[in-house]
Amino acid sequence: MHAIAIHGGAGAVPRAQLTPERERLYRDGLAAALDAGYAVLESGGGSLDAVTAAVRVLEDDPLFNAGRGAALTRDGAAELDAAIMEGRQQRAGAVAGVRHVRNPVELARRVMERSRHVLLVGPGAEEFALEEGLTLVPNHYFRTAERVAQLEAEQRGERVSELIPVPRGTVGAVARDRAGNLAAATSTGGMTNKRPGRVGDSPIIGAGTFARNGVCAVSATGHGEYFIRCVAAFHVCAAVEHRGLTLQQAVAEVLHQVLKAMGGDGGLIAVGADGHVVMDFSSDGMFRGARSSEGLHEIAIY
Amino acid sequence: MHAIAIHGGAGAVPRAQLTPERERLYRDGLAAALDAGYAVLESGGGSLDAVTAAVRVLEDDPLFNAGRGAALTRDGAAELDAAIMEGRQQRAGAVAGVRHVRNPVELARRVMERSRHVLLVGPGAEEFALEEGLTLVPNHYFRTAERVAQLEAEQRGERVSELIPVPRGTVGAVARDRAGNLAAATSTGGMTNKRPGRVGDSPIIGAGTFARNGVCAVSATGHGEYFIRCVAAFHVCAAVEHRGLTLQQAVAEVLHQVLKAMGGDGGLIAVGADGHVVMDFSSDGMFRGARSSEGLHEIAIY
Repeated sequence: MHAIAIHGGAGAVPRAQLTPERERLYRDGLAAALDAGYAVLESGGGSLDAVTAAVRVLEDDPLFNAGRGAALTRDGAAELDAAIMEGRQQRAGAVAGVRHVRNPVELARRVMERSRHVLLVGPGAEEFALEEGLTLVPNHYFRTAERVAQLEAEQRGERVSELIPVPRGTVGAVARDRAGNLAAATSTGGMTNKRPGRVGDSPIIGAGTFARNGVCAVSATGHGEYFIRCVAAFHVCAAVEHRGLTLQQAVAEVLHQVLKAMGGDGGLIAVGADGHVVMDFSSDGMFRGARSSEGLHEIAIY
Repeated sequence: MHAIAIHGGAGAVPRAQLTPERERLYRDGLAAALDAGYAVLESGGGSLDAVTAAVRVLEDDPLFNAGRGAALTRDGAAELDAAIMEGRQQRAGAVAGVRHVRNPVELARRVMERSRHVLLVGPGAEEFALEEGLTLVPNHYFRTAERVAQLEAEQRGERVSELIPVPRGTVGAVARDRAGNLAAATSTGGMTNKRPGRVGDSPIIGAGTFARNGVCAVSATGHGEYFIRCVAAFHVCAAVEHRGLTLQQAVAEVLHQVLKAMGGDGGLIAVGADGHVVMDFSSDGMFRGARSSEGLHEIAIY
């Protein structure tokens, strides 16, 4: 079985705030990303290419908090983080604090495949992007009118969700290809009004992103600090590999026990060694979708 | 039992290269750090203060690769990373890519105690340092003649260890105080000739640093990319908590099985819930020391 699952963020998007029209836009965006990733798998491509393709679509879509349309720092800039990991050799690449790379997930993949390193941050990451021939874009490419309004509202002390219902968190994808290889990718603009230089769980291998063949691939979204402190994604993998929990039980344990005890919430998507998909969350909702060669085909928010 | 263990890096320091005089300098430096941390515990202080005190001494000592005397980037600058974590509530703080903070471990602790965040990188981390009233120092404060020579040698293509025997890796400390609270801290200048913006495992919670009361506290040193990919420190904790491995077995599994299979090497220090200390490595040596209220008192390199 080949399968892919994606998320487009979790958190405070009260159902009452989401107009049918806006919900359709989100569902269309999720469907486009899901189909882009699934098409790769369907044509015999690898899970790494599938998660890259899906996350790239979500980064390009201004509705989601990654790439274009990212949440803005308190200085009004977009600062982007991303990670990618493949399960066969557990290779990984990640970037944080990037301001001019159109698709951070692509840069993360270059870090994995073409550097000796796993994590590059800030101007050093963009230096590497230039060496790799990636075109940099001005920071205003990422800034949308909605995100500027959201930042201004938050800085006036208004609750963001009361103004514009946009998902918190991140975007991400997990996949299993026909060869059984697992991969995970996560990308984010972080929290609205965040301190410049703040890095959440998305680019932290083990926290927001993890993949290990024969076990599972995981991508997280939510209040990143909590996911870092409990090493959420790796906790899921270790629980499945060593404690005999099902993937569903392991995901539920992290969200509804470990994170909850700390006071954190969010969501996780995961795919198991057999292609079984799990999507769970402890927040109001999670923008998500999944498709598999056994007929699973789902887009959901609540 | 209260106990503390420290490391001052692992890796290529061939025994033949280490003159007796130089070895004494390293041993004196380790002893000073160990005693500073142990004095905190002995006077009834907390494990968090103990690991902070020990790591601060190692950061200030130009012999070790953290703070003053840090390994230099390919641009000739010092770029520093650090993390700290306490086991009671699993709070954590970390910084990466810092160039002007004299004691990065102190800034990491401020991030933990006085911000909403876990990880701050680059200029944003230094902005926070200034807001917190920490004094910034010029980057040349960190650069020693030996590290400049080491960088130049590496850039000429010479093997560093043939010129100057300095430990690779990081410095770190783990401790258990009388109240049973565990803490871990790690600080580093990273790899000599590293790409600016490269971040290793030291500031990554779960990879280079982790602490959980009732289980263990862990600090890592070695080839950071491998420690990130296998989430080394948390792997140890999860193995002890959920699989019934002893701390020694769990540390050995990571070093001699998981990391080895990937091609990585390095060392780990850990202290268990009962104050039992484990120090193990798969590299040529690991600069290390440990003291406990039950009479353990050890300084060693090989």
